[in-house]
Amino acid sequence: MTKIGVIGSGAWGTALAQSFARHGHDVVLWARDESLAQTINQTRINKTYLPHHELHKNLYATADLGETCAADILVPVVPAQYMRAVLESMPRESIDGKTLVICAKGIEISSGKFMSQVASETCPGARIAILSGPNFAHEVAKGLPAAATLACHDLEGILPARDALASKSFRLYLTDDVIGTQIGGAVKNVIAIVSGIVAARNLGENARAAVVTRGLNEMARLSEAMGGRRETLMGLSGVGDLILTCSSMQSRNFSCGFALGEGKTIQDILTSRSGITEGIPTTEALAKLAAKNNIDMPIVAALQSCLSGEMDIDTAIHALMSRPLQAEFE
Amino acid sequence: MTKIGVIGSGAWGTALAQSFARHGHDVVLWARDESLAQTINQTRINKTYLPHHELHKNLYATADLGETCAADILVPVVPAQYMRAVLESMPRESIDGKTLVICAKGIEISSGKFMSQVASETCPGARIAILSGPNFAHEVAKGLPAAATLACHDLEGILPARDALASKSFRLYLTDDVIGTQIGGAVKNVIAIVSGIVAARNLGENARAAVVTRGLNEMARLSEAMGGRRETLMGLSGVGDLILTCSSMQSRNFSCGFALGEGKTIQDILTSRSGITEGIPTTEALAKLAAKNNIDMPIVAALQSCLSGEMDIDTAIHALMSRPLQAEFE
Repeated sequence: MTKIGVIGSGAWGTALAQSFARHGHDVVLWARDESLAQTINQTRINKTYLPHHELHKNLYATADLGETCAADILVPVVPAQYMRAVLESMPRESIDGKTLVICAKGIEISSGKFMSQVASETCPGARIAILSGPNFAHEVAKGLPAAATLACHDLEGILPARDALASKSFRLYLTDDVIGTQIGGAVKNVIAIVSGIVAARNLGENARAAVVTRGLNEMARLSEAMGGRRETLMGLSGVGDLILTCSSMQSRNFSCGFALGEGKTIQDILTSRSGITEGIPTTEALAKLAAKNNIDMPIVAALQSCLSGEMDIDTAIHALMSRPLQAEFE
Repeated sequence: MTKIGVIGSGAWGTALAQSFARHGHDVVLWARDESLAQTINQTRINKTYLPHHELHKNLYATADLGETCAADILVPVVPAQYMRAVLESMPRESIDGKTLVICAKGIEISSGKFMSQVASETCPGARIAILSGPNFAHEVAKGLPAAATLACHDLEGILPARDALASKSFRLYLTDDVIGTQIGGAVKNVIAIVSGIVAARNLGENARAAVVTRGLNEMARLSEAMGGRRETLMGLSGVGDLILTCSSMQSRNFSCGFALGEGKTIQDILTSRSGITEGIPTTEALAKLAAKNNIDMPIVAALQSCLSGEMDIDTAIHALMSRPLQAEFE
């Protein structure tokens, strides 16, 4: 039995906390909002972010970050754009020497950095790991079977955390490719937008499978160029997450792409919805990253051209289909 | 303008012939059945296998195999279990020195051999290529965008055929990994059955994404052990075809798995349907191949245990979920 501090009480943080608590651990769940922490403790339900799930008795919520960070293993699950601020506000003395298992997906838009880089900069004394995979929060909260990739440069040092966080119904597969693991979670949102466009335009299932597969190839190319491996994208954090994200109107990114494909403008789509559609800023960040590192990412570039208004969708599709034929991997 | 002989007038053969004809080529489509060839020529429709598509005027059907084999490029599209017999009945003098683009997916069950091996044995004088990818026939017949992998050991020699068969709406990506390309098309049917079981058991989308991804890993491992590459399975013939097959009740294999997951016996399922559910014999062939070559393919093995009656589905799921945790790729 380990004490686990889950930092962030959105749907995914709460679901993970529930999974760890059910597995027998003592879990402290940090909520930014004091009143949310109180109602979670009183009602055993996170009404705001994960209703319909009675939370396990081993789980305790608090708005005190210091109390949460006293746990043995720390699991930050705040949105990517808030990660740096939250990590910086954690008490230094309770981080050094511990394992941080980062569960946010995405790139810090202002810096173009991955979450592991943000964590290394802000918590140099900690062992940094990344957990990423095809995981709808409500299914993990229910205890349905799921699997994810757990990435850490220190494959020996991460074993106690892996053994604590994994269970029969939440399987964690190890890799030391920290960058490659994060690329899947970021790029899949972009490919999901494109997949939504293809669906809305009635281009067919063949076209959708092709664009998702070619998108995977762009992920793999980016991974290789950034020091990760191509192969990592074949795993749960790459292909797995793509499969989950690219075929479901449940995905905000897919439905955003669908609306774009129907002819709505990105301004109209974004003002009509609350919350973030992560793939939109990520597309811009990736297009910059690809240009800077001279990486060929034609699908990402085409979407960015559409979002910036440089190109209309039909022209972008035509341009992609008219590219010279090439080897499948080059 | 090239003369192309498409051998086999099922849905996929007819759709390919239509695609090539639309692209401006002179296409001869071989039908085993004389009367089918006649009605195709008279009505411009293949009522039996691809109704709803008026066939292009550049396409001509015949039951004369010799006439078909007089074409410049030969494209056999007969079912995997009939491939050897059809290739053997082609006139030798019209094969030698030509390119054969095999479009059947699957393993010859009696020998455990891939289609490229069957073709090399029966047509040693020909250049053998494999075309495989995420392609529903009716979409290709319509001219909707699609892409596939074209595999050949002779990457230079295949270029004229690639240039003839590819078009803006049917993109072909080259690889020299002939074995790896074929493994995707065979194993995906097995994974589709498992995916159907998971769906029927209401194990959730996370579990389905996980099992498809871990199935991809088994494909990749098999490819490596058989002299192919892991990477090839990341492409259109691997991931692409998995995406198309594993999420659709249109797939016979997925729906077979779904019925198994609902508790029907394999005997009842197979006697209630006409035609072949390819994944069933393929599972047995793959389980044998894996055992013989000492390759760890736990999902394939688990399905085979269920099909042979050694294990019930719940026990098999439990066993898979209880396997020791491991590195993501090993």
